[in-house]
Amino acid sequence: MSVEGEKRHAAEAAAELVEDGMAVGLGTGSTVAYFLPALALRGLRIRCVATSLRTESAARELGLPVEPFEELDRLDLAVDGADQIDPAGWLVKGGGAAHTREKIVAAAADRFVVIASADKVVETLEPPVPVEILTYGATATLRRLAPAELRDVPPSPDGGLIGDYLGPVGDPGELAARLAATPGVVEHGLFGPELVSEILIGRGSEVGRRRI
Amino acid sequence: MSVEGEKRHAAEAAAELVEDGMAVGLGTGSTVAYFLPALALRGLRIRCVATSLRTESAARELGLPVEPFEELDRLDLAVDGADQIDPAGWLVKGGGAAHTREKIVAAAADRFVVIASADKVVETLEPPVPVEILTYGATATLRRLAPAELRDVPPSPDGGLIGDYLGPVGDPGELAARLAATPGVVEHGLFGPELVSEILIGRGSEVGRRRI
Repeated sequence: MSVEGEKRHAAEAAAELVEDGMAVGLGTGSTVAYFLPALALRGLRIRCVATSLRTESAARELGLPVEPFEELDRLDLAVDGADQIDPAGWLVKGGGAAHTREKIVAAAADRFVVIASADKVVETLEPPVPVEILTYGATATLRRLAPAELRDVPPSPDGGLIGDYLGPVGDPGELAARLAATPGVVEHGLFGPELVSEILIGRGSEVGRRRI
Repeated sequence: MSVEGEKRHAAEAAAELVEDGMAVGLGTGSTVAYFLPALALRGLRIRCVATSLRTESAARELGLPVEPFEELDRLDLAVDGADQIDPAGWLVKGGGAAHTREKIVAAAADRFVVIASADKVVETLEPPVPVEILTYGATATLRRLAPAELRDVPPSPDGGLIGDYLGPVGDPGELAARLAATPGVVEHGLFGPELVSEILIGRGSEVGRRRI
């Protein structure tokens, strides 16, 4: 079974978790690209918020109703991919530069479900760890994060610059606290196990489920 | 001696710390309003960055050269006020809604000097603690910060909404870590002692100095 097939299996399993009437957070990335059509096929009456403009466009084309995420004060369920998943349930996300909105959605959801192919499961998390930083003082902020660099990509929809922390990850909880406490960092791509409810891993033709 | 006189004494003492050739961070607020003319009077050849548009305007009117804070990778000195100062050197800042840029400037400076009148010295920090949050998911972010509310003020120059955390402060280090780790929070108004080099307190006609 290919990696693409594993993504699709995990995504379809997540689509089965959505119920009529739910408010659903839609992640971003190549695995979510399988989740959106699987969700649309279910024909449920749901409300959705999107973590990126490309997810919003793709969802709308499939007939999924997307609303701005300003008034809703909680979500029932959010589904998103991950770049790396470690044994404790820590994730690295943000290869697609959408980690800030992805983390806000994950935190707002009663249940955050991660979907991935088996190759995303790692023993230890490795750099790069994506960061979003404010333009104001950006050079000084990068110096304090060093080693770190900006990506040559447009600003995020919230106006921040996208970059990567390139140093060792070590204890992800300690690094997450350090990155969060660094002035000028809007958000980083380490997602702690406290955000994660369940991980669905496509492995060959099966889907493994882990509750965190 | 009035509170205004105490602010002016502390501000003038801070202006004496600036040397020719320095890159200087200019804070925001009613005590910095005394620092700017005292600094301008010294007639030094310096480079400045400002933490708010109102500081930038005031500095330029006084002939202080202000440049965008994007290219400079460090500052020699930053000077700013505080709303509350506790015995360990923790500060609450951001009554003026400028705490995000103020913290970036404080962190970028080799030496961060706090100036205040004596009434800003407290035994224990009290709410409100200012927060800047992203518009995206703002209602959900406020729910997770509860008790918290938005202020009826314009967005920050970085695009975030200004609000206040209204719960107990307790251990400021623990609250700072919790606020920093909350997705959607761009920055909060608790400044830790690790940011602070020196505190100048106007007390009657004298200026007390504390190194942190």
